[in-house]
Amino acid sequence: MAFSEIAYQVTDQVATVTLKRPERLNAFTFTMRGELIEAFDLADADDDVRAVVVTGAGRAFCAGADLGGGGGTFARRDRTRDRTSKGEAASGESAGGDSAGGETVDRETVDRETVDGVPRDGGGTVALRIARSLKPVIGAINGPAVGVGVTMTLPMDVRLASETARFGFVFARRGIVTEAASSWFLPRIVGIAQAMEWAATGRVFPASEALEGRLVSRVYPADELLPAAYALAREIAENTSAVSVAAVRRLMWSGLSAASPWEAHAADSRLMAELGGAPDAAEGVTAFLEKRQADFPMKVSKDLPPGIPSWPDDPYRV
Amino acid sequence: MAFSEIAYQVTDQVATVTLKRPERLNAFTFTMRGELIEAFDLADADDDVRAVVVTGAGRAFCAGADLGGGGGTFARRDRTRDRTSKGEAASGESAGGDSAGGETVDRETVDRETVDGVPRDGGGTVALRIARSLKPVIGAINGPAVGVGVTMTLPMDVRLASETARFGFVFARRGIVTEAASSWFLPRIVGIAQAMEWAATGRVFPASEALEGRLVSRVYPADELLPAAYALAREIAENTSAVSVAAVRRLMWSGLSAASPWEAHAADSRLMAELGGAPDAAEGVTAFLEKRQADFPMKVSKDLPPGIPSWPDDPYRV
Amino acid sequence: MAFSEIAYQVTDQVATVTLKRPERLNAFTFTMRGELIEAFDLADADDDVRAVVVTGAGRAFCAGADLGGGGGTFARRDRTRDRTSKGEAASGESAGGDSAGGETVDRETVDRETVDGVPRDGGGTVALRIARSLKPVIGAINGPAVGVGVTMTLPMDVRLASETARFGFVFARRGIVTEAASSWFLPRIVGIAQAMEWAATGRVFPASEALEGRLVSRVYPADELLPAAYALAREIAENTSAVSVAAVRRLMWSGLSAASPWEAHAADSRLMAELGGAPDAAEGVTAFLEKRQADFPMKVSKDLPPGIPSWPDDPYRV
Repeated sequence: MAFSEIAYQVTDQVATVTLKRPERLNAFTFTMRGELIEAFDLADADDDVRAVVVTGAGRAFCAGADLGGGGGTFARRDRTRDRTSKGEAASGESAGGDSAGGETVDRETVDRETVDGVPRDGGGTVALRIARSLKPVIGAINGPAVGVGVTMTLPMDVRLASETARFGFVFARRGIVTEAASSWFLPRIVGIAQAMEWAATGRVFPASEALEGRLVSRVYPADELLPAAYALAREIAENTSAVSVAAVRRLMWSGLSAASPWEAHAADSRLMAELGGAPDAAEGVTAFLEKRQADFPMKVSKDLPPGIPSWPDDPYRV
Repeated sequence: MAFSEIAYQVTDQVATVTLKRPERLNAFTFTMRGELIEAFDLADADDDVRAVVVTGAGRAFCAGADLGGGGGTFARRDRTRDRTSKGEAASGESAGGDSAGGETVDRETVDRETVDGVPRDGGGTVALRIARSLKPVIGAINGPAVGVGVTMTLPMDVRLASETARFGFVFARRGIVTEAASSWFLPRIVGIAQAMEWAATGRVFPASEALEGRLVSRVYPADELLPAAYALAREIAENTSAVSVAAVRRLMWSGLSAASPWEAHAADSRLMAELGGAPDAAEGVTAFLEKRQADFPMKVSKDLPPGIPSWPDDPYRV
Repeated sequence: MAFSEIAYQVTDQVATVTLKRPERLNAFTFTMRGELIEAFDLADADDDVRAVVVTGAGRAFCAGADLGGGGGTFARRDRTRDRTSKGEAASGESAGGDSAGGETVDRETVDRETVDGVPRDGGGTVALRIARSLKPVIGAINGPAVGVGVTMTLPMDVRLASETARFGFVFARRGIVTEAASSWFLPRIVGIAQAMEWAATGRVFPASEALEGRLVSRVYPADELLPAAYALAREIAENTSAVSVAAVRRLMWSGLSAASPWEAHAADSRLMAELGGAPDAAEGVTAFLEKRQADFPMKVSKDLPPGIPSWPDDPYRV
């Protein structure tokens, strides 16, 4: 799999996705957007991947949308391109902001990304792809994470930060709005008061303020960040059923959307009925009683229970 | 009231529910499930009960589902029993996990507990019964609270813990999923990042981590836990209107489910109209102005206002 | 604009709303209710106002409903008055609690405030007006904030407190219920466990407990409170687009109500499409690239994008 603006690597059952435009502080482009979505598709499809770590190459995590397009960076462009004009549309475009840059997108793909006639904003398509990941996702925020660079981390399960990380929901300073569904994620993660203070000021703030405000779970010296992220990923990989974790991840995130605990209970009752008699449950309980490490036989690629939740209006259901 | 796996006692206007299988670390069974639901029915119906404290006998709070059933513990069993076969179904079953054990359940009761053809998981029926309690519920977590032992505490209003408490959302280590509507409760209590870290790792963690993650409100030396729980219960009993507290409890928990603040405002406006002119409000304001303790005349058993919220899809409305 | 129970003043792009009945600890009346709503209408309509600070005159913030009406304070009164009887209805009424006091309200206004035949409770109409403010709102809580005195602060974006502040959700001690849609706001701000502990006990608690429980963001010595509130307001005014902040405020608060992140993403995608090509975005990006302060040309009074969210069931849509 050849990526140009990210790197994707699987080691010891953990996939690492690295934002990789270090000369541009890993600024987000439409190419990076597509590659990130593809990377999460790979991780979901690969039974050898038990968790995903996302980090940045060089000194930044992600400096936000590439502003190479100047004042017109966030102006809407028609990304719909005819298949017959493949390659042409790219001519004359510099890689800019959230724009299509040099790549060609066929009409079919683009059409799926229109909501009520409005093109879905690019950062959000990444955020929502991460939200429905079947593998737990750990953000290892190694440096500045600004704009879409921070909003893309909100649907990750856990955010760990380096002491050198900085954060900014700078949208109101650029004349735009908090995107990537961050109006849904951020107040649920840090509370509405903290969310509004960061979003209304557009302030750039250090890792210590992010920790105090509960945007990140823990802060580490720079050289201890990735080891901590991998230790957490390994804790998951070594102890749990991959099918259980996939189902739990979907249950928990969709529980945050559920209309009531009764609705959540209907969903978990169904999964308990489906998984309670399945091989992983037999092995999990038996291993516990025998005081040994469990060796779970089920695979995410083929053994997901039918009751696994999909988001109510997810256009890309499981 | 003769209970076999819990104790229920009312003293000084506070009901204490004690999980009582100390030789099995108070492991959860289908019998315990039924007795817990019955205990909360008793507490709701008794005007002498102003708050409920839940704790465990011996050194544990609740070690989770009884795994005496071995690898088949979580396999689904048909709990529907014909009234004519009363008693028969139990033969040959050892008390196991979440199973029916030795008791007989009549068909009518069981049918109400099926959701879209799927039996409602047992732990969740307890959690949802606690969620709709008319009396405030205080968890006094005196030792290990693992699996359903911790998820059953999530719909309690306040969780206090002993320094000797330990917690574990261990479901993914057993090949099953977070149950008891915990996908609704947990991320709303501790945030989705903390919820996912505990649920994806299945880690067992100490009281200090529970406090830091806001799963529990306060941690006490072992011998100070119950006194602290009773002090909080007495603070409620001595100062407030029982009808107000019942209405507030329902308002607040259903507010967490409400679609918008406008919906919540419609509910509280109705209750203000119903209670504002009622005897407790007259006494509450008068006592305040006279700088004396209020003596509220209204009773939960007969004076609940009609506007008291029930959960949107609660199959057991008020 | 002549107000009698509040003061309204605009200085340096910040509006200050001061609750002003210091001889009654700024106790809330029906007159104050109307004046507060009017003040937020003024602030929204005035492009010179970039943020609103709310505080209290004298030693209190707001002691709650004026209990001058005695035991009957919260009894429902018919606030509908015929236009022809203007002035009459007031005769013989002392200014009391949440009652109409001396002012005359015409039928039309009152009718809009009935929900399903139940009059909307007065504190809630203020809270919901604040919730849909187009300008960020900062509570500067300088002393006791009790009953509606604290619930009215919940829809503010940030609450800052003086060391002399005290708080109390005392409703259950008065025989009534948590109002002003606080069952929606409070558990989302401080978590359900903290919300229930405060609401079930009706306890009055100091600023330190409010900070620990995350009801307020920061606590200051008394003489540093207002300077801190203004510094935060100025941070917003000096750095951001007013139109962006209005859109972000609506996005974020309605995101807290949104059914899913996909719904939030549809809303932010539309706003990105509408604002991304607008003058503020061009100026915001250009100024950033030129390392200078941005001078945003757009005005809230005339340039709000059509996609700005209104609350799902807000009877007063934008």
